[in-house]
Amino acid sequence: MGRTIDLNSDVGESFGRWRLGDDAGVLAAVTSANVACGFHAGDPLTLRRTCELAADRGVRIGAQVGYRDLAGFGRRYIAYERAELSADVLYQLGALDGIARAAGRRVEYVKPHGALYNTAVHDEEQAAAVVDAVTAYDAALPLLGLPGSALLAAGERAGLRTVREAFADRGYTAEGTLVPRAQEGALVTDPEAVAERVVRLVAEGTVVAVDGSVVRVEADSIGVHGDSPDAVRTTVAVRRALEAAGVSVRAFV
Amino acid sequence: MGRTIDLNSDVGESFGRWRLGDDAGVLAAVTSANVACGFHAGDPLTLRRTCELAADRGVRIGAQVGYRDLAGFGRRYIAYERAELSADVLYQLGALDGIARAAGRRVEYVKPHGALYNTAVHDEEQAAAVVDAVTAYDAALPLLGLPGSALLAAGERAGLRTVREAFADRGYTAEGTLVPRAQEGALVTDPEAVAERVVRLVAEGTVVAVDGSVVRVEADSIGVHGDSPDAVRTTVAVRRALEAAGVSVRAFV
Amino acid sequence: MGRTIDLNSDVGESFGRWRLGDDAGVLAAVTSANVACGFHAGDPLTLRRTCELAADRGVRIGAQVGYRDLAGFGRRYIAYERAELSADVLYQLGALDGIARAAGRRVEYVKPHGALYNTAVHDEEQAAAVVDAVTAYDAALPLLGLPGSALLAAGERAGLRTVREAFADRGYTAEGTLVPRAQEGALVTDPEAVAERVVRLVAEGTVVAVDGSVVRVEADSIGVHGDSPDAVRTTVAVRRALEAAGVSVRAFV
Amino acid sequence: MGRTIDLNSDVGESFGRWRLGDDAGVLAAVTSANVACGFHAGDPLTLRRTCELAADRGVRIGAQVGYRDLAGFGRRYIAYERAELSADVLYQLGALDGIARAAGRRVEYVKPHGALYNTAVHDEEQAAAVVDAVTAYDAALPLLGLPGSALLAAGERAGLRTVREAFADRGYTAEGTLVPRAQEGALVTDPEAVAERVVRLVAEGTVVAVDGSVVRVEADSIGVHGDSPDAVRTTVAVRRALEAAGVSVRAFV
Repeated sequence: MGRTIDLNSDVGESFGRWRLGDDAGVLAAVTSANVACGFHAGDPLTLRRTCELAADRGVRIGAQVGYRDLAGFGRRYIAYERAELSADVLYQLGALDGIARAAGRRVEYVKPHGALYNTAVHDEEQAAAVVDAVTAYDAALPLLGLPGSALLAAGERAGLRTVREAFADRGYTAEGTLVPRAQEGALVTDPEAVAERVVRLVAEGTVVAVDGSVVRVEADSIGVHGDSPDAVRTTVAVRRALEAAGVSVRAFV
Repeated sequence: MGRTIDLNSDVGESFGRWRLGDDAGVLAAVTSANVACGFHAGDPLTLRRTCELAADRGVRIGAQVGYRDLAGFGRRYIAYERAELSADVLYQLGALDGIARAAGRRVEYVKPHGALYNTAVHDEEQAAAVVDAVTAYDAALPLLGLPGSALLAAGERAGLRTVREAFADRGYTAEGTLVPRAQEGALVTDPEAVAERVVRLVAEGTVVAVDGSVVRVEADSIGVHGDSPDAVRTTVAVRRALEAAGVSVRAFV
Repeated sequence: MGRTIDLNSDVGESFGRWRLGDDAGVLAAVTSANVACGFHAGDPLTLRRTCELAADRGVRIGAQVGYRDLAGFGRRYIAYERAELSADVLYQLGALDGIARAAGRRVEYVKPHGALYNTAVHDEEQAAAVVDAVTAYDAALPLLGLPGSALLAAGERAGLRTVREAFADRGYTAEGTLVPRAQEGALVTDPEAVAERVVRLVAEGTVVAVDGSVVRVEADSIGVHGDSPDAVRTTVAVRRALEAAGVSVRAFV
Repeated sequence: MGRTIDLNSDVGESFGRWRLGDDAGVLAAVTSANVACGFHAGDPLTLRRTCELAADRGVRIGAQVGYRDLAGFGRRYIAYERAELSADVLYQLGALDGIARAAGRRVEYVKPHGALYNTAVHDEEQAAAVVDAVTAYDAALPLLGLPGSALLAAGERAGLRTVREAFADRGYTAEGTLVPRAQEGALVTDPEAVAERVVRLVAEGTVVAVDGSVVRVEADSIGVHGDSPDAVRTTVAVRRALEAAGVSVRAFV
């Protein structure tokens, strides 16, 4: 095929005594690591070890910025004012970049987490807050997000590089949007089925929607969830299937 | 006299709805601003505004790193493990530096806050944790601390630049150490008395101890407390008295 | 006139090093104290001292339950799931009641704070979550809220006693709802003007809306804000004006 | 034998997205559940479900109060002032009791967690702070702790009922104290070995110390750790071995 694709996954989401996900396993299979930044998950020591592991594995480090909400894991919408959200994102960006520097690397992209990711799909204010922060910190940092989202549109207007993401294990509607988590078909759980979808998505630029129709989905990076029980197995299956199909799996440029 | 001295004070210690200190007033009088980093005080928006204000005033920005303890304002000793404390300090350093960058500046020194400052006077492990973090982040950053402290000794062994601090409004023992806060004579509250002590300290390198004896205290920077009711008045009085005595008040080099 | 009215105000909103409001001053003038419960404000020691002060003054203690959001002071909407919010409210209720018991009193009513108060005006799920918690904890506890709100409606359906609140220092629309804080006329700041409005409200059951029209507002309790610079002066002015008008100011029954 | 003994274990230590321990499994085997109270672990919804589960199983609910330190899981010593610690403990007690009431039960005893437990063995101030809180909340609540500890001594002086605890899976020194966690022999990990030690302890009141000597250890309750990988297996093994030895496993009276 000759195509190349990036695989990204969330890591660094443990907090103190609480462990979450198999970061080492995930980092062995992905090319970009969305490392939590401490506000929704990730204590500093976890982040440091995760960045060191990513550096060892040659996996690129991205800042997975989120709402200040440990109890809700950043998954509950919070009605932030723009300046507050922007400052919270900037703070997280700097914090993780400091930790990445200590590991001999840098934060190389930004991807909002959870409810912030979902809100920035349609909410112009929160999208702008994230873009403000990235621009203020380092305007050379690419922004990872959903194609067609308010976030990527705001990023483009601000001159940021944007990276379009598709999801390996999420169902799509006939309109090419994600099936909401509460609805049937929201998640594809079988690792082989996920792998097959990803190959099709990368090879043909299409996905089979929940209603059976075929929709176009363009992506520069494929997001694989890191905290499901089968996370590592699914990620490895996706990577193998891509490589078997002649796709070069490497970090987006 | 021809001598020069740096004046430093804590700023950025508000948190959300809670305001603390008159940062604008303090920043008009000092040459180095110990900006809180979010763990003991300082929400990101406060930090951003404080860094912008410091940048506007030409006041140097330092990272006032502390324990993760908002409820205790970083004033309660916490028995951290070295790696955890080091990661917490590194995280705070990066976070504030990111905010300083967004304000067109950089963090230019590090000063531990509260119980971490006091603990690092004698506790080798916690001193080493702070030094580890500074070294890992940017070995060119000077470390501000108490002369003779474990912190400055560890910093020197690691090749960091160290800056010796004296306190404008704290009482000294005949041995040249600080009178513990719980004891009589711990605080000097009259702005004029504070100013007079500082001039003597800078001009002669001595201070009058609580027992009336005169002790040598060498300092590159004078710390003035920013959160007392008279903070601004005291800081201004100190600066004026120094300038009247022919001392050049400017950031340490 | 012969009418009686309750005056309530928020207290206990300090947190650690950060002081907010003059609780002693406010408690000298009100009959019901909405004591923060630790999630948006109020460290346990502050709460204990506030409850002891309220007990000393014979002021009734109410639980001012809020979102888990210290950084946002509970003023940012959070999209809680019902069971999570209910558990958070229940936890806060028990915590404050424990502290009230230690002061020889009990929590005697519940009033949501900030964004939870505003959300529970129209959001059935969050209103139900609060009612669930109160019912589960002690179904004899009255619920304070806005007349016509989803909260009071849900409370009534569940058999809770409901107490209608009007605001001393907030502007009203011609429809009898509060002028949003971002709009002109949202706040009445002059203590005498506030006092005059309250007397009219209690005596005649009406308020002059921002457009000059006179609207009916029925209330069992008048809320006075405790954290404005003039809070105590306004509260005292309101109380004096009511007593001068022959109104008996005492806790609702 | 005719003896009876109580088995206690920590539960409710999950927090939001982070799960810890198999509470249902543990609650099937113990007679007393030390439920976390939210300061070192345990979000309110977790606590509510844990209390409901304990109520269903007929397991007694105790308040496992701890330091305010989610990041450190309450395992780092914090130099609290007595009044602050007492208020923090009181707050947690009331919070969990509120949740227990909603489940139709009550908090029936208090056991400090982690570093607070260890500190209260020898620190008179922190021991007194816990006793103050229990006394202020409900002087009928028994206090669980280490025999010979400052905590139990302070509790007895204050007229509280005290319950002596021994540990199923901890090594003892020849003096009858616990082997520090960092030293060899601190933990006994084999479930059968643990069970055998517990039977001996209950039947004969002795334990084999790390140096092979036999020491007297008197206990009213046996603590089994709930968060190790083998927690449930160990707890079940202990219970079965006790019952096989004719010991009646039931809540202390």
